[in-house]
Amino acid sequence: MELVSQAILMGFSKIFLITDFGVGDWYVPALKSSILDINADSQIIDATHDIPSFDIITTAFYLHQLERNINEPSIYLVVVDPGVGGQKHSRIIVENSKGNIFIGPDNGIFSMIYHNNPKVFNIDLEKLQTKLPSLDVSNTFHGRDIFGPTAALISKGVGISEITSPADYFFQENFYEVEQQNQTLIGKLIYIDKFGNVISNINREIFGKSFTSKQKVICTIGKNKKIACYNTYSDVNKSEFLALFGSSGYLEIAVNQGFAAELLSFELGEKIILSTS
Amino acid sequence: MELVSQAILMGFSKIFLITDFGVGDWYVPALKSSILDINADSQIIDATHDIPSFDIITTAFYLHQLERNINEPSIYLVVVDPGVGGQKHSRIIVENSKGNIFIGPDNGIFSMIYHNNPKVFNIDLEKLQTKLPSLDVSNTFHGRDIFGPTAALISKGVGISEITSPADYFFQENFYEVEQQNQTLIGKLIYIDKFGNVISNINREIFGKSFTSKQKVICTIGKNKKIACYNTYSDVNKSEFLALFGSSGYLEIAVNQGFAAELLSFELGEKIILSTS
Amino acid sequence: MELVSQAILMGFSKIFLITDFGVGDWYVPALKSSILDINADSQIIDATHDIPSFDIITTAFYLHQLERNINEPSIYLVVVDPGVGGQKHSRIIVENSKGNIFIGPDNGIFSMIYHNNPKVFNIDLEKLQTKLPSLDVSNTFHGRDIFGPTAALISKGVGISEITSPADYFFQENFYEVEQQNQTLIGKLIYIDKFGNVISNINREIFGKSFTSKQKVICTIGKNKKIACYNTYSDVNKSEFLALFGSSGYLEIAVNQGFAAELLSFELGEKIILSTS
Repeated sequence: MELVSQAILMGFSKIFLITDFGVGDWYVPALKSSILDINADSQIIDATHDIPSFDIITTAFYLHQLERNINEPSIYLVVVDPGVGGQKHSRIIVENSKGNIFIGPDNGIFSMIYHNNPKVFNIDLEKLQTKLPSLDVSNTFHGRDIFGPTAALISKGVGISEITSPADYFFQENFYEVEQQNQTLIGKLIYIDKFGNVISNINREIFGKSFTSKQKVICTIGKNKKIACYNTYSDVNKSEFLALFGSSGYLEIAVNQGFAAELLSFELGEKIILSTS
Repeated sequence: MELVSQAILMGFSKIFLITDFGVGDWYVPALKSSILDINADSQIIDATHDIPSFDIITTAFYLHQLERNINEPSIYLVVVDPGVGGQKHSRIIVENSKGNIFIGPDNGIFSMIYHNNPKVFNIDLEKLQTKLPSLDVSNTFHGRDIFGPTAALISKGVGISEITSPADYFFQENFYEVEQQNQTLIGKLIYIDKFGNVISNINREIFGKSFTSKQKVICTIGKNKKIACYNTYSDVNKSEFLALFGSSGYLEIAVNQGFAAELLSFELGEKIILSTS
Repeated sequence: MELVSQAILMGFSKIFLITDFGVGDWYVPALKSSILDINADSQIIDATHDIPSFDIITTAFYLHQLERNINEPSIYLVVVDPGVGGQKHSRIIVENSKGNIFIGPDNGIFSMIYHNNPKVFNIDLEKLQTKLPSLDVSNTFHGRDIFGPTAALISKGVGISEITSPADYFFQENFYEVEQQNQTLIGKLIYIDKFGNVISNINREIFGKSFTSKQKVICTIGKNKKIACYNTYSDVNKSEFLALFGSSGYLEIAVNQGFAAELLSFELGEKIILSTS
């Protein structure tokens, strides 16, 4: 906690951008400029701009994975918002006990961040405008007009309370419930990564509660596709299926030197059943 | 103007890159290195490298939009050139009254920048070589060999006149003329953004001269597709068409939480007709 | 050599990233953070993350081209590894006489770097862990856990010997042999760039040994496609084929303002035959 407090006191070095803007239009450089104009020393890292448009579930899982991979307390600026312009969602800041700051619309995208005792704040446009008198908020581009400047101020060390009002709630969906029945786990296939790995919502912890490391565990997908769990890709031959815990921390269906997503017949959201028989 | 002069005196912090290089080859890192080797402190921002190859119109509109979104005087380094190697176009610098510096080939890509009293310069290779004795200019990669080093020198505060000769002209095309007939506007559909919004060449100013904010304005595309103008996405139901002024400042055809470009039957360059009936 | 030693003594300013990670997942920001957490001042340049998955040949050619385009001694961090997790390849550092440092798996990706008297080292995990006590090495993400931290330490000026053991070999394949028969050269088509140019493995030097600059050289591809060599795109009309030495330094098949790769019937790896008749 000492470290976290100090980080907040001093500002943050890294701002990760997570958007569904793509990289063909002017939205990303506009967002970056809105940050750099306020804090030229901020270290902006393009996490991804390729979130499928308006996809809350993918964003939530992406953010969960990204946070797991980053050690230092950082700012995560997330602009994925089906309702932009309609003011359906408030604009929030969530600060969790790892000292990470999440900024974005309150539409479920923060459902999977590490949330041990998180603090929630609503961005207050009037307070923001007091800090930034030239701020001009459009109906359509809250990334550039609200979220970017907010991230920049916090990265410079401005206190969250100076630009927000406290809130006691943020919107969370339990996208990823896993059913446990005797020695059977029933989860879902929820994400496809660039290598064609199909990632489930079954993490090591849940797996470890049902199975020992010595048991041979089999995944069933669809009516009769059976895939065995292994420790590493090279435990199977080239082009063969396996299930393993990849760097995501979740059980993934993979093919050694191949693309599981193309070779497996499935749909995102479909069940995956784990058992020892 | 005070601010602008000072910015030029002191150099520029930001260099935006706009190219049709894509991000799969070595052209982008080579371009960046050619800048960083001369000014290691320059702040290079990848605006986009996904301009369709050799597409002058898209580049001109992109640049217009990008400039609208950036507050501080900046350098815009634009490498989109169908004629590279053939020396059909001179290599120019345009400085406009916003204090922005545009560097690239004189092939029409600067047609839509803010051009109140712009100054135009031809890059002078001999003068450039005097500043950079090790410069080696190839036939095929002017981004790395000419435009990048030019941007780097200017970003460091080298005067434009030290590496150019004055010119009194740059090539402009009026891609975007809008016809006005009584209370009817006839424009064109000219750009598709990542969200599938189809952007026309009708901006707020032209719109405001023909229609009041209280009039119900209808767009006609093709023989009989009618789309009504609204203020914001949520004024229509999910999956319904609307026309609105988005963050581009131009009238866009959109679908609430959908992709207009896929749902609308049209071609780029096609007419869009606005009327009150 | 003076310059090189000094660069190593002082650390390196630039770290180029070359991976097959794509930009949709969390792998790239995780890799970057693993570097920045150790050296916040490093200048990370995304060279490309779009290497086709596990493609050693493309990586080798890409790296060759990138190195040719970069002037200052730099670090090249390359993570393309079909065998990750299987520990088939050792993790190496190659330092060549240009003062460039290449870090990655020893699987052939360094086959085409400039290799006049290169020094080879094996990364020693125990030594690395001595420098970085909190290092936690997973089975699946060596970029984040090993290669990134290694690059960061070297960029800060840590001596290579402090984190490696010497090796006397690295894996090289001669992907690119060209046959010379009288006044005929037989090479291969090996790379397609973003502009659709199809690049062969015939460089200027080999070409110059067989042909004079005054000879009219004809390329034959497949049974009877004949394409003549020229100096620049504008030597042929729009939409016509030509062969020329592009910025790659290798003979490329191109189409003036067109995409040769789509208009030419060929396969990567196919022969290209050059002769004067």
